Amino acid sequence: MAPLQSWVDVDPKSHFSIYNIPFGIISTAEDKKPRPAIAIGDYAIDLKAFTAGNGFSALSTIQPYQSVFSEPTLNAFAALTREYHTIVREYLQSVLLNGGPFPEVLQRNFDLRKKAIIPLEKCENHMPMKIGDYTDFYAGLNHAHNVGTLFRGEENALQPNYTHMPVGYHGRASSVVVSGTPIQRPNGQILENHNAEVKQPILSPSRKLDFELELGCFVCANSDMGDVIRIEDAPDYLFGVVLMNDWSARDIQAWEYQPLGPVHSKNFGTSISPWVVLMDALEPFAANGIPTDTKPLPYLDEKKRQSHFDIDLSVSITTHDGKTTTVSQTTAKNLLFSFPQMLAHHTIGGCPFNVGDLLGSGTISGRADNEKGCLLEMNGNGQKEVQLAGGEKRIYLEDYDEVAISGVCGSEPGALVGFGECSGTLEPAAELKFS
Amino acid sequence: MAPLQSWVDVDPKSHFSIYNIPFGIISTAEDKKPRPAIAIGDYAIDLKAFTAGNGFSALSTIQPYQSVFSEPTLNAFAALTREYHTIVREYLQSVLLNGGPFPEVLQRNFDLRKKAIIPLEKCENHMPMKIGDYTDFYAGLNHAHNVGTLFRGEENALQPNYTHMPVGYHGRASSVVVSGTPIQRPNGQILENHNAEVKQPILSPSRKLDFELELGCFVCANSDMGDVIRIEDAPDYLFGVVLMNDWSARDIQAWEYQPLGPVHSKNFGTSISPWVVLMDALEPFAANGIPTDTKPLPYLDEKKRQSHFDIDLSVSITTHDGKTTTVSQTTAKNLLFSFPQMLAHHTIGGCPFNVGDLLGSGTISGRADNEKGCLLEMNGNGQKEVQLAGGEKRIYLEDYDEVAISGVCGSEPGALVGFGECSGTLEPAAELKFS
Repeated sequence: MAPLQSWVDVDPKSHFSIYNIPFGIISTAEDKKPRPAIAIGDYAIDLKAFTAGNGFSALSTIQPYQSVFSEPTLNAFAALTREYHTIVREYLQSVLLNGGPFPEVLQRNFDLRKKAIIPLEKCENHMPMKIGDYTDFYAGLNHAHNVGTLFRGEENALQPNYTHMPVGYHGRASSVVVSGTPIQRPNGQILENHNAEVKQPILSPSRKLDFELELGCFVCANSDMGDVIRIEDAPDYLFGVVLMNDWSARDIQAWEYQPLGPVHSKNFGTSISPWVVLMDALEPFAANGIPTDTKPLPYLDEKKRQSHFDIDLSVSITTHDGKTTTVSQTTAKNLLFSFPQMLAHHTIGGCPFNVGDLLGSGTISGRADNEKGCLLEMNGNGQKEVQLAGGEKRIYLEDYDEVAISGVCGSEPGALVGFGECSGTLEPAAELKFS
Repeated sequence: MAPLQSWVDVDPKSHFSIYNIPFGIISTAEDKKPRPAIAIGDYAIDLKAFTAGNGFSALSTIQPYQSVFSEPTLNAFAALTREYHTIVREYLQSVLLNGGPFPEVLQRNFDLRKKAIIPLEKCENHMPMKIGDYTDFYAGLNHAHNVGTLFRGEENALQPNYTHMPVGYHGRASSVVVSGTPIQRPNGQILENHNAEVKQPILSPSRKLDFELELGCFVCANSDMGDVIRIEDAPDYLFGVVLMNDWSARDIQAWEYQPLGPVHSKNFGTSISPWVVLMDALEPFAANGIPTDTKPLPYLDEKKRQSHFDIDLSVSITTHDGKTTTVSQTTAKNLLFSFPQMLAHHTIGGCPFNVGDLLGSGTISGRADNEKGCLLEMNGNGQKEVQLAGGEKRIYLEDYDEVAISGVCGSEPGALVGFGECSGTLEPAAELKFS
């Protein structure tokens, strides 16, 4: 089947085909005020300008809510409910469709085209959502198994709770940043010798700076304290998905994490991709996750619904000399629990949710050597070097390394549904002096 | 020295003497819009009405910022910086002082008195701050020691990191609620037999519902990602202190917490007292915390500054028959790390802060039996019953138990600086059916 085509020129390899229509927040040199947009090919459609130019004139249901497209985040749009996400996305698809039903809205409206269609290279991306709370799960079974094996041996790799619930921790919302934001190597307490009799930490820049390949999912509806979101209703609470890099300082983590979990080893920066791919765009790529023998408790039972996504993921490292190496290629199917399961579990005790809350998947790794989602797994806890282009080697990241995560659904040229990139460059630690 | 007296009638035992002037958010039956207020004796002074009635006419420095007193939270007032907290609090003290310099502002302004002075019993309290991120520490050394002893024996009670850094975890901001909000017993995964060969959890209402006696401290200034708040500057980032009950489901916690820390065992509800006692009001009660042989790393070294507070704390349980028992009496000096140390540690890696962020102290326990800050310590992990009035006994909380935390500085009648109460009644778990 020949794919649908847009009258906007879209490279067949673009992540932002007409099948996608992801939403983000942009600003430009001419208008520095952050505002909603969608991406198509190498262009953004500025939804504030589109709205001002009567772009939604043919969509009566959205008329009372058009102010959501003048907001500095997508929260108000997200809060309209999934029904409206569907309506708006499909309308924008039909506006952009070659031979579509609304050529006068944009295609033949040259004044509006000039105002609303902006090359992506002229756009600055901003955080798509104002995040309330952020919870990072640990649902990548292969990752949990690999890391558990390194620290506790293969027999005890997974904690007994692991296959029964999506294990996770509350993360820090304030340090979630949009792709492209530099990440500063954190200073923190590290213990140089964990086997020493006297355990005296030092304050030092982290020497074991890692990335973690994850997905993030934004919540689009509120729930009150005491409300339980049932597994079959959970999809209505999900807005869309982004790529996520949960930068991690392994040495700070090793010293701090007992008994209450990771804090400073994670809260110096978490990067997300700027374009939120809506759940509707992902649904054609629904897939099963990792099978398990553990029968889920009924509140987590999705009754065989395919609630994972077949997203091809990759991670590359670009060193200071500009040479790029792909260090991992895997798939988002490598998760044990889905976002609906995470939300059903998160609310089973009545924890309230707000629009804009973020769920992280946990690190996604495959089983093969070239499918690992972080350096800790690749280097076997510091035991081997990772080879990069140009003869460079890494155990952990060095200053000025850029890590870029990419993710895309599908393979048909012109019909890709992708996330673009989630990237960040590691900058040197702050030089601190204390007396 | 005879204490200063207000022309407002203040009971000598009131927590809200003229020496205090705590800030909160109230609404009334006549005006349901939440707005800032201060408390004095058994009255609130409605600061929105006070402002509208030119109450700040004698304080020129606050004129450009008076809109902060029409906001639904204290965030905008907090953001004015500590200098303004001092000026506003001292001005309000002088307005309320018997024989003070500004009798015409309120004392003799009967029209404004009628509008702005409201009996506390007619006020509904609301969350004083909009919380961005919430981090709960574990700085109560006696608590950590007692709990560690129960689970790992006295030899290994404290993890090696414990005395070197304020250990903590990221908490859930969305479930922090104001005193008086009912707390629903959470459902969650629990493991009935932790020693069983096959570990099969069930979904059940928590059977081990506990309270935790804590202090909370609100942040009043932003820091950017990468900023380090130095220990000597940390006090400028602190707005004020509240009492906190970090309700905890011990059975959910025991099953979920490895390896990433507590999540669902905590995020069903965290109660705080409604009136924020400003740092200025607490400073006369500055005290040392728990001494330690561990020399702090320089970034945590307060150079012997007294940064803890001599707050008498107590916890009572009121059972369904209305009988109240004080189950614990201790002091806030029972902390190893102070709020400035927590903030200095939290930002050492560059984690950003926002106005309204909340720091929790961790459970505060003394060493004696009647000084323990949670039931887990009192019952020795389920080994003994706690005796209550009227012949009632508790291992953990029962439905309809009300837990109330109280805290007060000083003992001179008419000069107390107290927090009032942080209370909550436990309601039965939601009845859930899944098929």
